[in-house]
Amino acid sequence: MPLTPESQSTIALVVRQNTAGIEEPVASVVAFLQKAGHRVVFELDTAAHLGMPGIESMTVPEIGEQAQLAIVMGGDGTMLGIARQLAKYDLALIGINLGRLGFITDIPVERMLPALGEILQGKATAEKRTLLEGRVMRGGEMIFCGVAVNDVVVARGSGAGMAELRVTVDGHFMYNQRSDGLIVSTPTGSTAYALSAGGPLLHPSLQGIVLVPIAPHALSNRPIAIPDTSEIVVEIVSGRDISVNFDMQTFASLQHGDEIFISRSPNTITFLHPEGWSYYHTLREKLHWHEYPSNDGKLK
Amino acid sequence: MPLTPESQSTIALVVRQNTAGIEEPVASVVAFLQKAGHRVVFELDTAAHLGMPGIESMTVPEIGEQAQLAIVMGGDGTMLGIARQLAKYDLALIGINLGRLGFITDIPVERMLPALGEILQGKATAEKRTLLEGRVMRGGEMIFCGVAVNDVVVARGSGAGMAELRVTVDGHFMYNQRSDGLIVSTPTGSTAYALSAGGPLLHPSLQGIVLVPIAPHALSNRPIAIPDTSEIVVEIVSGRDISVNFDMQTFASLQHGDEIFISRSPNTITFLHPEGWSYYHTLREKLHWHEYPSNDGKLK
Amino acid sequence: MPLTPESQSTIALVVRQNTAGIEEPVASVVAFLQKAGHRVVFELDTAAHLGMPGIESMTVPEIGEQAQLAIVMGGDGTMLGIARQLAKYDLALIGINLGRLGFITDIPVERMLPALGEILQGKATAEKRTLLEGRVMRGGEMIFCGVAVNDVVVARGSGAGMAELRVTVDGHFMYNQRSDGLIVSTPTGSTAYALSAGGPLLHPSLQGIVLVPIAPHALSNRPIAIPDTSEIVVEIVSGRDISVNFDMQTFASLQHGDEIFISRSPNTITFLHPEGWSYYHTLREKLHWHEYPSNDGKLK
Amino acid sequence: MPLTPESQSTIALVVRQNTAGIEEPVASVVAFLQKAGHRVVFELDTAAHLGMPGIESMTVPEIGEQAQLAIVMGGDGTMLGIARQLAKYDLALIGINLGRLGFITDIPVERMLPALGEILQGKATAEKRTLLEGRVMRGGEMIFCGVAVNDVVVARGSGAGMAELRVTVDGHFMYNQRSDGLIVSTPTGSTAYALSAGGPLLHPSLQGIVLVPIAPHALSNRPIAIPDTSEIVVEIVSGRDISVNFDMQTFASLQHGDEIFISRSPNTITFLHPEGWSYYHTLREKLHWHEYPSNDGKLK
Repeated sequence: MPLTPESQSTIALVVRQNTAGIEEPVASVVAFLQKAGHRVVFELDTAAHLGMPGIESMTVPEIGEQAQLAIVMGGDGTMLGIARQLAKYDLALIGINLGRLGFITDIPVERMLPALGEILQGKATAEKRTLLEGRVMRGGEMIFCGVAVNDVVVARGSGAGMAELRVTVDGHFMYNQRSDGLIVSTPTGSTAYALSAGGPLLHPSLQGIVLVPIAPHALSNRPIAIPDTSEIVVEIVSGRDISVNFDMQTFASLQHGDEIFISRSPNTITFLHPEGWSYYHTLREKLHWHEYPSNDGKLK
Repeated sequence: MPLTPESQSTIALVVRQNTAGIEEPVASVVAFLQKAGHRVVFELDTAAHLGMPGIESMTVPEIGEQAQLAIVMGGDGTMLGIARQLAKYDLALIGINLGRLGFITDIPVERMLPALGEILQGKATAEKRTLLEGRVMRGGEMIFCGVAVNDVVVARGSGAGMAELRVTVDGHFMYNQRSDGLIVSTPTGSTAYALSAGGPLLHPSLQGIVLVPIAPHALSNRPIAIPDTSEIVVEIVSGRDISVNFDMQTFASLQHGDEIFISRSPNTITFLHPEGWSYYHTLREKLHWHEYPSNDGKLK
Repeated sequence: MPLTPESQSTIALVVRQNTAGIEEPVASVVAFLQKAGHRVVFELDTAAHLGMPGIESMTVPEIGEQAQLAIVMGGDGTMLGIARQLAKYDLALIGINLGRLGFITDIPVERMLPALGEILQGKATAEKRTLLEGRVMRGGEMIFCGVAVNDVVVARGSGAGMAELRVTVDGHFMYNQRSDGLIVSTPTGSTAYALSAGGPLLHPSLQGIVLVPIAPHALSNRPIAIPDTSEIVVEIVSGRDISVNFDMQTFASLQHGDEIFISRSPNTITFLHPEGWSYYHTLREKLHWHEYPSNDGKLK
Repeated sequence: MPLTPESQSTIALVVRQNTAGIEEPVASVVAFLQKAGHRVVFELDTAAHLGMPGIESMTVPEIGEQAQLAIVMGGDGTMLGIARQLAKYDLALIGINLGRLGFITDIPVERMLPALGEILQGKATAEKRTLLEGRVMRGGEMIFCGVAVNDVVVARGSGAGMAELRVTVDGHFMYNQRSDGLIVSTPTGSTAYALSAGGPLLHPSLQGIVLVPIAPHALSNRPIAIPDTSEIVVEIVSGRDISVNFDMQTFASLQHGDEIFISRSPNTITFLHPEGWSYYHTLREKLHWHEYPSNDGKLK
């Protein structure tokens, strides 16, 4: 159900575990939302670890079906985990960062109440993020499937020699790649592992997927961005201890001949940001684009 | 006018200059097309340097208005030059490579007649390529404008110290970048200069533009791909001898405060390829994806 | 014992296994050497898999003590394996490549007899290569040690989350690095895995070691070359399934707190090349420095 | 003349121009040194722009011949400029950074008096840095020569198409490189322009020089580190508006056939640091190795 300003909404709170001193900000968010007339519920695990009595709790599917909004308090990892589960439902997500600014948890805890106030009054920028879904096929049968907000990664084990992967896109053979592995990343994931492996940034509204090889043997095996309508098939040609990960959740023990089919998920995630939010502002902050490593007299 | 199989078409030939032994393949293309009932014309410069009498010649605008097809014989450079001029007209382009395979002149001279035969019978894959257009604004006035198939590049002169460029996208400030310059590239240009500067490959059907910094001072100033609906503004903050290039055609002498507005052109180019053509095949050939630098026993 | 032209030498042959049609070139090398008055022996495994009777065989230590020269027929992998074992002895190595040119097996099979002839007559360029040695320390005890011609690699397992490694050089703290792992490479190894991971090339006579992070989280964690007199200590701070490899030979199951001490080995390898050999020639051939990916009209 | 603790020394001050509020720290350094019994002199330009009467001034050559120590107050650019001029003399340099920490001006203004005190009492780490010298040869004649602390750069002009450079090392042909240019860098320069262009870091005590191509056409034209005993020759094969720079000081208008001979200078620079100084500490600070771009839940 979409969120409507002025009406009473069901709002779920999902909170990172093992975070010292978290009770106070959570309590103030709960009080703020209840005062504004909303029904506040805790996600079941959140309820269990917080130990704050008097608040309803719900399973993730119940949240998906009954809530209009989920507020995530934690870091990007917390958001990734819950967003993947809630993607098939029709509710929006807000990310409050408890530590350092995140790429997708962009509201600092210090400004959370005014930011929530604005968003709940409709002064919000909604932003859609795509997800990937992948199936592992062996001998004609699907033996695993998963969904990823950031990336699907096919990678060799440590000390296992290079993997050889055969990559096909929309039925067209791309290449046989020898490398440590291949990252297939959404725009959201382009600031995570794909970036470390040398990939480009992809703006979240670019309708693309980027393939980033990890330590490829051929120096010209460069990252390539393709339309997000593409179906990518990665076949294990050779290598040992190869696994596939969805947002770092692992399915291990791939065999030669196994194929991983990867495509955009039909579901999307909706993030709500305070008005005036800019993706580039987040990049500047996170990537220190305002700082320079040297001051060596070369400029001006 | 669109090309229709079976009907008589006007087909223009554009041929690279100063190419020894070019007359014979040109003559065989002319004969092949005339035999198939088409009207063959030479682009004016082509006519002048070829010196093959008895064939009509036309200016580029006349070709644009009267021809259904232009066949370019040369390399990617020849194609770039004419494609930029013909982009505003409604005709398709075919590229025949006289030397080594090109990224956008993909038919080898050895197979040109059967390939042309197939394409003219409609066994063709049509592929659209976007272009960029850019305007240089100074004190509220446009002092230069241009169109690029590959890229718009803002760069400092040699020995001039770094440039500082302020980049804005759709009104959002991205960063102040200190570097040798910035490449704003189409997918077509992503295999050219942008690739040398560390940019990713962009599939031609990805609706994106990639910004690739040249030797940026901040190590986190990574290439970023954005939707091709974006308007990019690059302002010259500091630096000397700064110029802007459109496909390496230079407008020099930019001043501090000058702004370059860059966006997708309303025009596109249509390439015709033989059926079964695959962009990845071209990449594999051009980037030697079938070769590996070492054979050092690490694989299997 | 050093090799002396004109005198009878003991020359060992080490040949890659499972190589179809290898008997003929091996037989011609044997005949050539015997005709020149040398004593030819097979390394024990080579003897076993070749099945060419009538030739003495020796273990690797026997070769090390008795031979003046070992001729390796195979690829870089075969050379790596035997060179690591022979490093502590005083004999020279010659590499004949049975397939594609190698970085360290630089004599093509087609020219092996004239090349061997020249080298045995003293028309040779001798070249020294450094090796690394490493010890894994746990709770004050050494639990593993090894030697590497190419590299010592500390890396996480697939799907295991990033590793955090604390790196110290000569007692100075360098950094805590979060990444997939760290490659500590000799100049010889700089054309192997380190190159794939983004490392620079190191000329074999540069007295350096290069540290190349694999997919580092911090974009400024760039490869760093240090003097080969340095002692590098890599401590496992966090991460799962971390292993250390010596030329891809694995010691797995490192624990938090384990330290890997890496330094130059007191032993070196001596390669003999035909006179006029140039390292840059090998690089040009292997890295295709004579080829260019595009022909796009930008040059001249 | 070497600096001897306890004896009276001549100490020169070189101060960055146009630095607001600089008089106070300069005065306190002067007073500190004079109180310790040293003779303090200003470099001539420093004297002119500072306008602090009562202090002797000297030309750079006079400083070189008479002073035991030069204290540079400014940034890395100020240090680069004076170090290049003083390299042929036998005196040590100390760098005080007036703004942000520099790579080679490592003493923050806040700690300058205690740091100077320690160094003058002999509690110092001396560190040598190599320089490059280069000669431009045309038709057998030297038409220019220069010295560089950071780098010698051969680069094309903006909008001038790629340069083609033929590189030879110690008489061995390395490659014909097509690119925007080539950076030949000392270890000191490896943190400056070479780093921006994708080069590795080189520890100052590594006896190496690194060649870093700028936006090379061939993707395998990777940075290469070679011994600093090498003589590098860069010949201009083609390209327009090519210049050579020594620490960004430009000699322009190179012609086809011009050769630039580059080798290590016989002179070196000696920096004095407070005891306990570590190069890696500077790298960590300058390159933000203690920070991470994301906090995305992937680590533990």
